[in-house]
Amino acid sequence: MDDEKNPVRFGILGCAEIARKVCRAIDLSPNSILHAISSRSTGKAKQFAIKNSLSELVKVYGSYEEVLDDSSVDAVYIPLPTSLHLKWAVLAAEKKKHVLLEKPTALDVGELDRILEACECNGVQFMDGSMWYHHPRTARMKELLSDPNLFGEVRMIYSSSSFVPPPEFFENNIRTKADLDGFGALGDAGWYCIGAILWAMNYKLPTTVTALPATTLNSNGVIMSTTVSIHWEQEGTVATFYCSFLAHETMDVSVLGSKGSFHVEDLIIPYEESSASFNFTSGASFVDLHLGWNMTEQEVRIHNELPQEALMVKEFSRLVKGIKDSRMGPDTRWGGISRTSQVVLDAVKASVDSGSKTVYI
Amino acid sequence: MDDEKNPVRFGILGCAEIARKVCRAIDLSPNSILHAISSRSTGKAKQFAIKNSLSELVKVYGSYEEVLDDSSVDAVYIPLPTSLHLKWAVLAAEKKKHVLLEKPTALDVGELDRILEACECNGVQFMDGSMWYHHPRTARMKELLSDPNLFGEVRMIYSSSSFVPPPEFFENNIRTKADLDGFGALGDAGWYCIGAILWAMNYKLPTTVTALPATTLNSNGVIMSTTVSIHWEQEGTVATFYCSFLAHETMDVSVLGSKGSFHVEDLIIPYEESSASFNFTSGASFVDLHLGWNMTEQEVRIHNELPQEALMVKEFSRLVKGIKDSRMGPDTRWGGISRTSQVVLDAVKASVDSGSKTVYI
Repeated sequence: MDDEKNPVRFGILGCAEIARKVCRAIDLSPNSILHAISSRSTGKAKQFAIKNSLSELVKVYGSYEEVLDDSSVDAVYIPLPTSLHLKWAVLAAEKKKHVLLEKPTALDVGELDRILEACECNGVQFMDGSMWYHHPRTARMKELLSDPNLFGEVRMIYSSSSFVPPPEFFENNIRTKADLDGFGALGDAGWYCIGAILWAMNYKLPTTVTALPATTLNSNGVIMSTTVSIHWEQEGTVATFYCSFLAHETMDVSVLGSKGSFHVEDLIIPYEESSASFNFTSGASFVDLHLGWNMTEQEVRIHNELPQEALMVKEFSRLVKGIKDSRMGPDTRWGGISRTSQVVLDAVKASVDSGSKTVYI
Repeated sequence: MDDEKNPVRFGILGCAEIARKVCRAIDLSPNSILHAISSRSTGKAKQFAIKNSLSELVKVYGSYEEVLDDSSVDAVYIPLPTSLHLKWAVLAAEKKKHVLLEKPTALDVGELDRILEACECNGVQFMDGSMWYHHPRTARMKELLSDPNLFGEVRMIYSSSSFVPPPEFFENNIRTKADLDGFGALGDAGWYCIGAILWAMNYKLPTTVTALPATTLNSNGVIMSTTVSIHWEQEGTVATFYCSFLAHETMDVSVLGSKGSFHVEDLIIPYEESSASFNFTSGASFVDLHLGWNMTEQEVRIHNELPQEALMVKEFSRLVKGIKDSRMGPDTRWGGISRTSQVVLDAVKASVDSGSKTVYI
């Protein structure tokens, strides 16, 4: 009830396609309300409002500054190109706006640190826009993964994230431009693989990162496809991932433990909104003569009342409300999670740029 | 009918655990019959005959030579340690016995070439003991994989093969001894990953092979676990695989194409004997606002009348009968398939031995 009486008021900087999904998520989230949208021109922002049937109460601004200057705005969602994150996230924090920032978070970890510092100094919440962390399926997988009897130690992680965009994407999309989203497929699809791998390792930074010699760059030098190996020396754990704009839709994560393993095929965007599943096995062995297994994989299905992006907004707003009510300070865990992903992302990029040399972290 | 009247008569060299499964497969295969078994001592061979309830008509020999000298034996199945393959496979061929050889086929491709040459010179059939090639599921997957509209070009292949053997395995099993099965987990579990990857690439040899810096060796220097990347430069295709005695049971293969992808979780030993499935998607995309997919993965299930190992024996015996009836010569395709796997296996071993240097093929 209290949630619905005093919702966190969001402003959005930019009218990217992903902003449409987050508008809806803000609407679905019981503790959040969309207060303002903006674009570099009022016309484009108005078009966005019409296309998405936004309420007439939503303010429509022709500049990002106006959102930051609107004292009714508690928090901003920033889906701008990565190259603009530093400027606008820092400005937002300085204006005491809580920051929900689209991924990849920054051009490098140095930039991200400046953003996180600005948020901390100004007492505002930071979170990146990775939605899958907030799906209850993720929590259930983590529970199993953390069970020493069912799963044991993590030995190997594999992830892939790929899709084939339409031809015009390769001409026009910001993810193909070196000066806008210069990480290309690595920053877009690869961000999720890196996040999933680090999630499985409790966000422990790896020892080394190596881009395998099979990277495809476009004519701007932007990564269209790459395969990466990651190594934790102390644990002897290894991960590989493939991220690509050149292969059919996949969102796979497999985690192999000493006693169990699981596999999920739709991590980033579940096949359906209302439930999602993963396959889990533990203690599998072969029957006599190796004629088969003593079990088949178990499908674990989790139902969710709200879609994962609404759960993300809800969690973000819960933290914001805690700060507003002076009950608590910002939760720096989310910034820490983003930071580990950014560190590994930077290392992959450095490895690609060096012609697949191993990068030590 | 003809099959059952004149079955191919098998002799088995050695009483390895896997021989129990193949005894049964010979029994199930309509064109094959078990004629003789052997061990280094008659006692051990007799024990094997009793344990497996073999017919009293099956000859029990106390040496491998006796099997090769038995003129009633058409073909031999050789499940001996890899270090003994060269000697016994060549001797068998020289005695005009057709050769069904357990994997890994040899200590290196030079040895395998001598085996294949002996088979060719003596006009006998060669086949290695990889059973999964013979499952009708494999043929169905290949059909989809080869469809340019449904699958497109192969971009990425991932495979894992792992299991956790009981503690005594690490003390006593031949796969932990440098002088017996010196490839360890690579020759055992990894052979399948390599085979599956090459199968997806129509057995085209890759450009490079690199063992990632996360290999675990035992105190004998035998591979207990390793992760490998493989690259086809011309196609821009990349593969990674993980093979291990240190992780929970997996037998995964994922193949990502430009238009479709498939995933199988029980490639080497299907969960059940009578049917097996894989997941396939083609032309997947996201619904508006990326709230979900336009499809979920399709489970393709294939029923089989005989288990895959019986289908392997049946196919081998079909070829043997063709040769016996002078209708055709040996089919060298199977030796060619084994040879590509052995070449890649050797390259992985060389990369492991060199501390993860990239090996050019």
